[in-house]
Amino acid sequence: MSTVLYNRVALIGLGLIAGSMSLAMRRAGVAGEITGFARSQATRNTAAEIHLVDRVCDSPIEAVKDADLIVLAVPVGAMGAVMAEIEHVLKPGAVVTDVGSVKKSVLEAVLPHTPEGVHFIGTHPMAGTEHSGPRSGFAELFDNRWCLIVPPEGADEAEVEKLERFWRALGSNVERMDPEHHDIVCAVVSHVPHLIAYTMVGVADDLRRVTDQEVIKFSAAGFRDFTRIAASDPTMWRDVFMTNKEASLEILGRFTEELFALQRAIRTGDGDHLHDYFTRTRAIRRGIIEAGQDTDAPDFGRAKKGT
Amino acid sequence: MSTVLYNRVALIGLGLIAGSMSLAMRRAGVAGEITGFARSQATRNTAAEIHLVDRVCDSPIEAVKDADLIVLAVPVGAMGAVMAEIEHVLKPGAVVTDVGSVKKSVLEAVLPHTPEGVHFIGTHPMAGTEHSGPRSGFAELFDNRWCLIVPPEGADEAEVEKLERFWRALGSNVERMDPEHHDIVCAVVSHVPHLIAYTMVGVADDLRRVTDQEVIKFSAAGFRDFTRIAASDPTMWRDVFMTNKEASLEILGRFTEELFALQRAIRTGDGDHLHDYFTRTRAIRRGIIEAGQDTDAPDFGRAKKGT
Repeated sequence: MSTVLYNRVALIGLGLIAGSMSLAMRRAGVAGEITGFARSQATRNTAAEIHLVDRVCDSPIEAVKDADLIVLAVPVGAMGAVMAEIEHVLKPGAVVTDVGSVKKSVLEAVLPHTPEGVHFIGTHPMAGTEHSGPRSGFAELFDNRWCLIVPPEGADEAEVEKLERFWRALGSNVERMDPEHHDIVCAVVSHVPHLIAYTMVGVADDLRRVTDQEVIKFSAAGFRDFTRIAASDPTMWRDVFMTNKEASLEILGRFTEELFALQRAIRTGDGDHLHDYFTRTRAIRRGIIEAGQDTDAPDFGRAKKGT
Repeated sequence: MSTVLYNRVALIGLGLIAGSMSLAMRRAGVAGEITGFARSQATRNTAAEIHLVDRVCDSPIEAVKDADLIVLAVPVGAMGAVMAEIEHVLKPGAVVTDVGSVKKSVLEAVLPHTPEGVHFIGTHPMAGTEHSGPRSGFAELFDNRWCLIVPPEGADEAEVEKLERFWRALGSNVERMDPEHHDIVCAVVSHVPHLIAYTMVGVADDLRRVTDQEVIKFSAAGFRDFTRIAASDPTMWRDVFMTNKEASLEILGRFTEELFALQRAIRTGDGDHLHDYFTRTRAIRRGIIEAGQDTDAPDFGRAKKGT
């Protein structure tokens, strides 16, 4: 199934997602030439050194010239500015996509800079690790993960389907969603959980009665997973909350409401309330295992991985 | 280094921790005979079927008879009742320990039932998985994990040191702590993170605008790790919060304070505040990796494990 879908693919941004896309495109044989650009000279040097893409370019204009598919893989707050920079050199019929975690604000920022005859279709590969930078990519990152496809109103159906084929070739499962629904689903399953993890790690760091040394030394299951989450890229996450404000605040409001109910149960000694609540959450976990999003192997102790 | 430290060891409770202890004791050759009791007939049957211990007993009295080391591996809310049940048959010179996640309230519950000449010394192996029950144990669970040793005032130093040798033989690193300090450290690195994970999973479950199916289907990094945490044993966790009330409420108070500051930054669009906060947490993560509590391998995508 090694069919070239896009003769030339340009990656703007060369971090974890773009790097993994390049490696996955090569594995699948779906791209002719892959060009790449990153704002930072150090990132460009590293990308060139490890041959992350076929050709590292010194400007976004150079990278997107004659490209059939352009991938904006920069923090969501920077999408509009990048699009404004390249709009005049985009080839008629070219497809531009982004890989940001927020869709409503990205479409708002990017569509005014999308020329007639160029197709903008948003995508959100729901995959990642806590690492970032050009060395962090790997070809298997998208395998069996979801990629949400978020076309704007009136998008060209043939181009949307082609882009879905592309993501499937990279290993993903695809599903279409409208921008508003996308943003609330992601606030629940990703954005607010990240904010909470960041907060908990910050609390631990502040606490005078527990030393830093102890927090690090005795970080067992629970906190250790939180620090893993909280180690993700700060700029990317700042932009997520700046641009998905409405949905994030709604879910945060619900979260604090529920947390206060549990806090009250602790204060009043209402063990039944806690037990019922804790029992209910187990079913969701089972659903996730059955849906194939995770394995059932014990992970907390990590002993079986020989650490 | 196969030295028998205790001729007969009795395990009261046959879940993840007790089962793993039995397998680790056999691996280390530190126990003569290992007896075991669990409240549930089904658990006793399973334990017998898989030879989890040398002898499954039908009562706690039978299990602890002539035992040199008795391990209370039941939810922390049940420790006092178990101790009251066995106190009259404990052998003079015997050592009783527990493996609960809370220490102040366990000592308060258990010490009044500790006969003259019997030594109670609390321990807390900081290891576990999200699984529970007699089939979930494995010998490597404690390897390179911390076991906190919490002796009551006036404990026999020789017996404390012997129990530390025992836990080292099971693979753990050991550190002594007083009960109050233990409880606040654990509230930070384990108890409150668990409560938060439970809450977030509960929020997702409640949300009408996002279907259960979507929450499960699109659970990416972040939320997936939360569900893993939230799948832990409900009774054990209810008891943790019922018995470590003071420290849990203190840490929860700090957590909501910090969360509100971040929420306000989102509402007012203060990106610098978020970026600074998110940057600070990365350092803690690095500390944990350097302390050997976790690996640096990317875990979010889990692609490399071939899921």
